[in-house]
Amino acid sequence: MAMDYSKVRDWILREDSFDVSHLGKCEAVMSLGNGYMGLRSATEEKYLGETRDLLVNGTFNKFDKNEVTELPNAADVTAIELWIDDERFSLDQGTHSGYSRELNIKTGELTRTVQWTAKNGKSILFESKRIVSLTRLHDIAIKISVTAGSDLSLKIRSGINARVTNTGSQHFSEVEKRFYDRKYMQFVEQTTQSKVGFVINSVHRFLKNGEPIDLPTDVNIEHRLVFADYEVGLKAGECFTIEKFSNVNTTRDADTAGLDLPAIQEKSLLDLQKSETLGYDALAAESAAAWKEQVWEKAPIEIEGDKKSEFDLFAVRFAQYQMRIFVPAHDNRMNIGAKGLSGEGYKGHCFWDTEIFLLPYYIFTDPDTARKLVEYRYLSLPGAHRKARENGYKGAMFPWESAWLDDGETCPLYMGTDILTGRPIKVWSGIIEQHISADVAFGVWQYGIITEDKDFMERCGYELIMDTATFWASRLEQGVDGLYHINDVVGPDEYHEHVNDNAFTNYMAKWNMKKAVAYADMLKTENPALFASLDRKLNIAENFPKWSDGADNIFLPQPTADNILPMDDRFMDGEFIDLSKYKAQDFVAGIMKDYNLDQIQHIQVCKQADCLVLFYLLEDQFAPEVKRASWDYYIERTLHDSSLSLSTHSVMAADMGDEEMAYDLFQKSCAIDLGPYMGTSDAGIHAASFGGIWQCVIYGFGGVRMLDGKLRIEPRLPANWNKLSYTLYWKGEKLAVTVTKDDVEIQNLTGNKQVELTVRGKTVVI
Amino acid sequence: MAMDYSKVRDWILREDSFDVSHLGKCEAVMSLGNGYMGLRSATEEKYLGETRDLLVNGTFNKFDKNEVTELPNAADVTAIELWIDDERFSLDQGTHSGYSRELNIKTGELTRTVQWTAKNGKSILFESKRIVSLTRLHDIAIKISVTAGSDLSLKIRSGINARVTNTGSQHFSEVEKRFYDRKYMQFVEQTTQSKVGFVINSVHRFLKNGEPIDLPTDVNIEHRLVFADYEVGLKAGECFTIEKFSNVNTTRDADTAGLDLPAIQEKSLLDLQKSETLGYDALAAESAAAWKEQVWEKAPIEIEGDKKSEFDLFAVRFAQYQMRIFVPAHDNRMNIGAKGLSGEGYKGHCFWDTEIFLLPYYIFTDPDTARKLVEYRYLSLPGAHRKARENGYKGAMFPWESAWLDDGETCPLYMGTDILTGRPIKVWSGIIEQHISADVAFGVWQYGIITEDKDFMERCGYELIMDTATFWASRLEQGVDGLYHINDVVGPDEYHEHVNDNAFTNYMAKWNMKKAVAYADMLKTENPALFASLDRKLNIAENFPKWSDGADNIFLPQPTADNILPMDDRFMDGEFIDLSKYKAQDFVAGIMKDYNLDQIQHIQVCKQADCLVLFYLLEDQFAPEVKRASWDYYIERTLHDSSLSLSTHSVMAADMGDEEMAYDLFQKSCAIDLGPYMGTSDAGIHAASFGGIWQCVIYGFGGVRMLDGKLRIEPRLPANWNKLSYTLYWKGEKLAVTVTKDDVEIQNLTGNKQVELTVRGKTVVI
Repeated sequence: MAMDYSKVRDWILREDSFDVSHLGKCEAVMSLGNGYMGLRSATEEKYLGETRDLLVNGTFNKFDKNEVTELPNAADVTAIELWIDDERFSLDQGTHSGYSRELNIKTGELTRTVQWTAKNGKSILFESKRIVSLTRLHDIAIKISVTAGSDLSLKIRSGINARVTNTGSQHFSEVEKRFYDRKYMQFVEQTTQSKVGFVINSVHRFLKNGEPIDLPTDVNIEHRLVFADYEVGLKAGECFTIEKFSNVNTTRDADTAGLDLPAIQEKSLLDLQKSETLGYDALAAESAAAWKEQVWEKAPIEIEGDKKSEFDLFAVRFAQYQMRIFVPAHDNRMNIGAKGLSGEGYKGHCFWDTEIFLLPYYIFTDPDTARKLVEYRYLSLPGAHRKARENGYKGAMFPWESAWLDDGETCPLYMGTDILTGRPIKVWSGIIEQHISADVAFGVWQYGIITEDKDFMERCGYELIMDTATFWASRLEQGVDGLYHINDVVGPDEYHEHVNDNAFTNYMAKWNMKKAVAYADMLKTENPALFASLDRKLNIAENFPKWSDGADNIFLPQPTADNILPMDDRFMDGEFIDLSKYKAQDFVAGIMKDYNLDQIQHIQVCKQADCLVLFYLLEDQFAPEVKRASWDYYIERTLHDSSLSLSTHSVMAADMGDEEMAYDLFQKSCAIDLGPYMGTSDAGIHAASFGGIWQCVIYGFGGVRMLDGKLRIEPRLPANWNKLSYTLYWKGEKLAVTVTKDDVEIQNLTGNKQVELTVRGKTVVI
Repeated sequence: MAMDYSKVRDWILREDSFDVSHLGKCEAVMSLGNGYMGLRSATEEKYLGETRDLLVNGTFNKFDKNEVTELPNAADVTAIELWIDDERFSLDQGTHSGYSRELNIKTGELTRTVQWTAKNGKSILFESKRIVSLTRLHDIAIKISVTAGSDLSLKIRSGINARVTNTGSQHFSEVEKRFYDRKYMQFVEQTTQSKVGFVINSVHRFLKNGEPIDLPTDVNIEHRLVFADYEVGLKAGECFTIEKFSNVNTTRDADTAGLDLPAIQEKSLLDLQKSETLGYDALAAESAAAWKEQVWEKAPIEIEGDKKSEFDLFAVRFAQYQMRIFVPAHDNRMNIGAKGLSGEGYKGHCFWDTEIFLLPYYIFTDPDTARKLVEYRYLSLPGAHRKARENGYKGAMFPWESAWLDDGETCPLYMGTDILTGRPIKVWSGIIEQHISADVAFGVWQYGIITEDKDFMERCGYELIMDTATFWASRLEQGVDGLYHINDVVGPDEYHEHVNDNAFTNYMAKWNMKKAVAYADMLKTENPALFASLDRKLNIAENFPKWSDGADNIFLPQPTADNILPMDDRFMDGEFIDLSKYKAQDFVAGIMKDYNLDQIQHIQVCKQADCLVLFYLLEDQFAPEVKRASWDYYIERTLHDSSLSLSTHSVMAADMGDEEMAYDLFQKSCAIDLGPYMGTSDAGIHAASFGGIWQCVIYGFGGVRMLDGKLRIEPRLPANWNKLSYTLYWKGEKLAVTVTKDDVEIQNLTGNKQVELTVRGKTVVI
């Protein structure tokens, strides 16, 4: 496995040859978005095997009772078909040269260039540009230029295609479709179950040699389809430009709350006319300026070092790009899907990925957005309460997979193929992967400490921590040893099901209950009014002793004589097998092709290591020798079949002082989406891994950590880096940190108040 | 427009070059079927723009309230992807020679051969065969042979794909999907609204150089998808064969009535094993034998003449092929869709096409099947009664578009694009194209007379004729002239809406009421028991006077001084425009690109001519000079934008003695699906036009007609034909007719009773 550095140039992710057999890769990693929507970067011309996704955050719909709710694939506006003298423009036909597709992460613009010669001998220079605007959240704009290599006729077919599905499931009913002024196309559709109305508009503007021209329009309305045909003759050397402006609005949007569907139809058409008047270049410039302001000036990262470090810098900036395009910075009623908004994988659901892998980035660089993500958990408490009730527990039992606020658990019941029974595999996570409730509490706590957002903690934070503690207290089972156990769960390592006393789960549950106890004690004296109000809501009087008793008497797995922390009550009794075959595979979960899940239960193999995540979150609770011995034991048994695994290991390796191992694992983390394995991103990018990449750099090499409410910076730069600089928000102050081999320089950019932190073991005040 | 004779060879329809931009043509015209199901002939390898349809007759489903019920596209089993040393087998890639795709209509087998060389230089000889069994109604069998041109690795991906939709509408919920013995794939799905369960099974058998071999199987179950991957190494010259057996069963099937879904799942797997054991060649031979027995020996047609006549013979046999593959000979609860089972166009609904264009073929050649088609109308009376009630009428008002028995009207409310308003066009046919009720009665009457099926007439026939007469009587509106009028209708020429006193409608309504009167009179004396029973059901006592009064006093448009029958109260007042542009177009409805339907109302233009159909059905009610003058008038104004138009005109031309014109129109009829216009069959073949082609030959050139209960044969062979022979069932006797330029020879093949008929004006008894 090796990075392909040639594909990276400063801010540019580049594809220099077109691979029709691996369309998914660039569709996903080069996808565009703005948190409101995500648009897969399928090419304008169509190919067999393409996946053309337009996903609007939060618009979940459930096809039927057998399927779980998912982000529906909205009508497509990106397909624009061209014919040159009746030959369809397609890179798998004719010949082409000078191919290049580039995603400029600095500006959020996708461009393509290619010189194409049709079988009929006619040739064109094709150039396209595309943005999803970061300022106009509903806007998609495309610009195509065709320069004729010889006299030719150019035919264009473009419209709005609502025949797309989510791998066969159609989530929409047609509502209305029409043309206005033979020019503006409007398609209105509504999700079948959640009844979210979508209004999609498109309009074209044509220019010949830079001068606007009108073309005769053949208008077509068909089943789930509106499109127009155009035709123009070009002389050799003439340049024809198509600008296509589209916008997407839904009845779920916060910015049009109160408007009904007809009002949104009308407003969105007026908005479209404004964009059309501005033109592509102005829209792109406006959006690029927002990228600069919202991301690159707000959370700049610089790395200096050898040639290889240029890729490292790109990789972490690419992570920032991704973390901006999929985060709903505009709306606290939605969260981050496991594949962002770049594909249908995991159906747009959010997992513990948000709190454990992604949230730190937002907390440290964009606290306003981080608040929206934690508020989402607060707003989705009704589903968590229902899940607890349905399972016979109390308090807030968060869903393993979460979608719309009141959906509750949305984890599918089956996934994958059991090679022995020939049936789909039952997924237990939605039922017994319970650590998510502690993860949510942990995220809330982190957010509260680092931002000092008192308002949020008082409105939501304390309640969330206590409510999840109540769940844990109700979840405990008293054993014959008199201690509390948590039996029959799935831990972070999902290859082992129905385990008892999973280390990660038990330690985190204890942490959760202890935090509730501590906050209750604190509020009782410091804010009696809030305490009283929370008591009325959560019945603290009754629950406090249970939290306290639970935290004090929960069984915690202890290291063996060899200092290895057992991840559960049976893993270490399993069979040790040679995993080298699976470690060498260029795809994940290869072991499932040889063993079914029942068999894997008895094998010492980890999808990802539970204990390592635990050491990382609660680093001060474990002795260094336990971490090291456990690392050695588990790393041998870990396949990293989860995209969450590598970065955690990298940060841990850096913490242990093994920068070489840390750097190697960081490189592998970056390769999850940016690497050469062409099939890995088909269903979408790996959202959490981008948080992981940022953590490798800032937590791992940068040595940043919030520990017990305090900021620590303990940098360990990789050998090939000379300098790393970044910014951090800490309790409302913005710090600029510059790390070199010998020095750590910290500047308080806001300077409203003094900041105390530990740098390389010493307390400093800035 | 010219026939492409090169594509026809005896019983073979042949494509000798592959056209990736017009896939729909061969998919549709070469589609396979057996009346139970229809399978579009999409190629095994996939192409952009393909439509892969598997339609099971009668399994209608309605996606939502905004869509009309349609035949759902069932999971696909025909896609079989091949990779040669990792290059995907695809004819738009690499190079190929020796391409041929042939539909053998004699055996119902589709074959393809091509020599293909991949870009990597590896070459194969690819051969495939495919049948939909005529004996095992649920069976699809495919055989692929790959002969290696050099040492190579062959990868195969094949399974059951339930991600297909009807242009975006998904009609199925997943129910179950799995492998049995890592070999038998089963996918169970259920229609979302009508709740019809589908069980689709597939299994593969592999042979290397003719010897069965087992291949390792990589099993995969995904969302709406079950498939397996296989790989085999071949040395140069080795031949590898894949046989794929599939079957389709539904909970709506008559032959498994009483079995629940699990029982059907079990039974269908056992059936699949039987087919697998037999092997492809035996299944194909068995089916070919059934084609011989059920079609070619049962209803043989021969034409002798010049070279051109070879195509004519093929065309009429091709019509017979089509009329066998789409007719539900096995079940009287379903009918014939306007596109047969070869595509999603017109959604599988049946129209007047059945009675007026198709039924004569079945009545004269396969009375058992004809009975099922008329019984379908009887079984769908509940929907007809409901439609009458909902519209404020009485009796049986048949739906313009008919689907499942109790669906009632299923005509969509909108279709196409209004070029002026930019909106979809409102379709009035479902509301006011009312002649269908008389057409149904006409079909029943024809069936009853020609077959002398007394049982059917007593069980269903008389009732249908009287019940529709009751509708007409209630539909009439008394005018100021004291006569009855039928205002605000659409006639067969659907370009004119909201017309009054449409000639076709009024004459046929009168005919319908007169027949009811006549049958009531007859039964009263000849079968008082049946009369009494019908009287209880239909209230004859009250309705008879209304039928009688209606028939006597309905207004009938009369010829002008120029002998032209006005098709309605306003057509002749419309503007006469030059239609040559539209007549020359290679697609239909081109006029709608220049005028919207509101404008067309005021133009003298016919989609098809109303009056011509009328002259044809009720030929003895109009004087020859009226027919001739009306012909001349309307033909100038007719665009033949309906596939029903040409054959009617051909028969009429033959009747008028204009064999040259008749032959020209016959050729054009044949070209609707067999001609060179590549886009015309995309949504499916034109079912009624096949009835029309048969009518051109047997009615037109053969001169056969049932007139007033009597058989007439008045042949007029085209100049280039020397001989035409065919068989006809007449009142239970099977006649063999041989027509030469000078002679008509008729033989009674059954000879149970004497048959009286008129041949060239003379009464003969055989």
